[in-house]
Amino acid sequence: MADSGPASADYLKMDVAALNAFLRDAFPHSTDGTRGTVVIAEPGHVRMQLQSNDGHLRPGGIVSGPTQMALTDSAAYALVLSHIGPVAMAVTSSLNYQFLRPCRPGLVTADARLLRLGRRSVVADLRLWTEDEMRPVGQASVTYMLP
Amino acid sequence: MADSGPASADYLKMDVAALNAFLRDAFPHSTDGTRGTVVIAEPGHVRMQLQSNDGHLRPGGIVSGPTQMALTDSAAYALVLSHIGPVAMAVTSSLNYQFLRPCRPGLVTADARLLRLGRRSVVADLRLWTEDEMRPVGQASVTYMLP
Amino acid sequence: MADSGPASADYLKMDVAALNAFLRDAFPHSTDGTRGTVVIAEPGHVRMQLQSNDGHLRPGGIVSGPTQMALTDSAAYALVLSHIGPVAMAVTSSLNYQFLRPCRPGLVTADARLLRLGRRSVVADLRLWTEDEMRPVGQASVTYMLP
Amino acid sequence: MADSGPASADYLKMDVAALNAFLRDAFPHSTDGTRGTVVIAEPGHVRMQLQSNDGHLRPGGIVSGPTQMALTDSAAYALVLSHIGPVAMAVTSSLNYQFLRPCRPGLVTADARLLRLGRRSVVADLRLWTEDEMRPVGQASVTYMLP
Repeated sequence: MADSGPASADYLKMDVAALNAFLRDAFPHSTDGTRGTVVIAEPGHVRMQLQSNDGHLRPGGIVSGPTQMALTDSAAYALVLSHIGPVAMAVTSSLNYQFLRPCRPGLVTADARLLRLGRRSVVADLRLWTEDEMRPVGQASVTYMLP
Repeated sequence: MADSGPASADYLKMDVAALNAFLRDAFPHSTDGTRGTVVIAEPGHVRMQLQSNDGHLRPGGIVSGPTQMALTDSAAYALVLSHIGPVAMAVTSSLNYQFLRPCRPGLVTADARLLRLGRRSVVADLRLWTEDEMRPVGQASVTYMLP
Repeated sequence: MADSGPASADYLKMDVAALNAFLRDAFPHSTDGTRGTVVIAEPGHVRMQLQSNDGHLRPGGIVSGPTQMALTDSAAYALVLSHIGPVAMAVTSSLNYQFLRPCRPGLVTADARLLRLGRRSVVADLRLWTEDEMRPVGQASVTYMLP
Repeated sequence: MADSGPASADYLKMDVAALNAFLRDAFPHSTDGTRGTVVIAEPGHVRMQLQSNDGHLRPGGIVSGPTQMALTDSAAYALVLSHIGPVAMAVTSSLNYQFLRPCRPGLVTADARLLRLGRRSVVADLRLWTEDEMRPVGQASVTYMLP
């Protein structure tokens, strides 16, 4: 907790194109599409989307937990980068994921929203959903430590 | 996760007065005001408030973590009861709390919102705040198991 | 995460008596016994115990979740203090509690063990139990930020 | 929480070979080695190992968070299967991961231990480590719901 930081920045240090370029360079081996694509970046909010494929599924034909958590971590990372700039060494310190409903194959959307932007850490709220934003398939709280 | 339940009920089984009466009977020894008072109950959302006193403070003169977590648990419990009725034996199975900012003394508000209402479990998102709803002092994910 | 710190200190900066005196001074209004008593302090490990009373119970006659979480937070705080000294302003940044079994009234024991002792944060593993250490009533991960 | 179950089973329903065969069939597209291999299965405990490759790394040359969380989920799943038998539809309901230290490339070991084995859910404690079991790179609490 420590001292309180602003809930959101007034402007962004990286836009959608810069975020996607950064993620592509940072993870050169991620050719399987697990990382997803940033589609919205605005103060306090980043949205990423992933088109699931067969490699993302688990028994029952639903999108696997690790796929959901990887997309969650990427979206939180993009949210952090958009507010503090291209600091590769920001690292996740905790990720707490609640699986709410089966995640059906297709387009998976992750919305990352700032809960706290501090000097030493960033806390984000994440929601994953498929057809209906009001019926999320997962919710997560993610903390990043800043270098 | 299991099978998917509705994100919110269309009507409530207990209103504000019924919830406060239930909590008062369920915790006859809670005379110190730690539990707080239900002030809003509507489909998908319950709000509780607590007027903090000296017994709720920790070093630094801020509201203690256990006080915040007790209010969180009460608000999640009231949310569950409002949607399923007066089933005392619903029990918390997990509570994950992120402390975001110092919680200053005074009126503390907790908003509990349904993430998933299933037959076997309920998952809620909780936000605690003091002056500014947009700058929460804490966020929690709480899971209740139903009997 | 950031850079890695030692998993445990070689010696303690506060012993059992110093920890109990510090907690008593830090929480002068905690007269209801919710905080418990430190009974063991050794490198990497602190044990606290609480004798539950009627005020700690919830419907069903078991020890309430908030009571368990308050004891958890106190034991994690004592663990931090024992390793870094009497720094009152160390603050909890997250507490994630899993309720495992009904917590029967009587003597409740909390074991706090260091997972990581860093310069900026401390992560602890917590186990609460009553009769049988091998059948914990709760498990928690607690993170403290250091000033 | 609900009623309390045994902390561990007396015998296993699936051994190391059966677990690896099951995981291979369940995830036919996981050819990149992300899942890892079960190397120990005994009452209350399953160990999996993963030999990391370049595709598992993040900026800084350390094993990525999603790789660690995927191994964590697999090890928890194997622990559940070993105790209840080949029930593919057990699903993760929550995964809470604490990143403790940088995870260096090489052999990553995940130890999954039962905290509670109930009729409706299983809670496991997970530790990930590389060179030194006493200095874990990550700790997680994972809950599986049983069908």
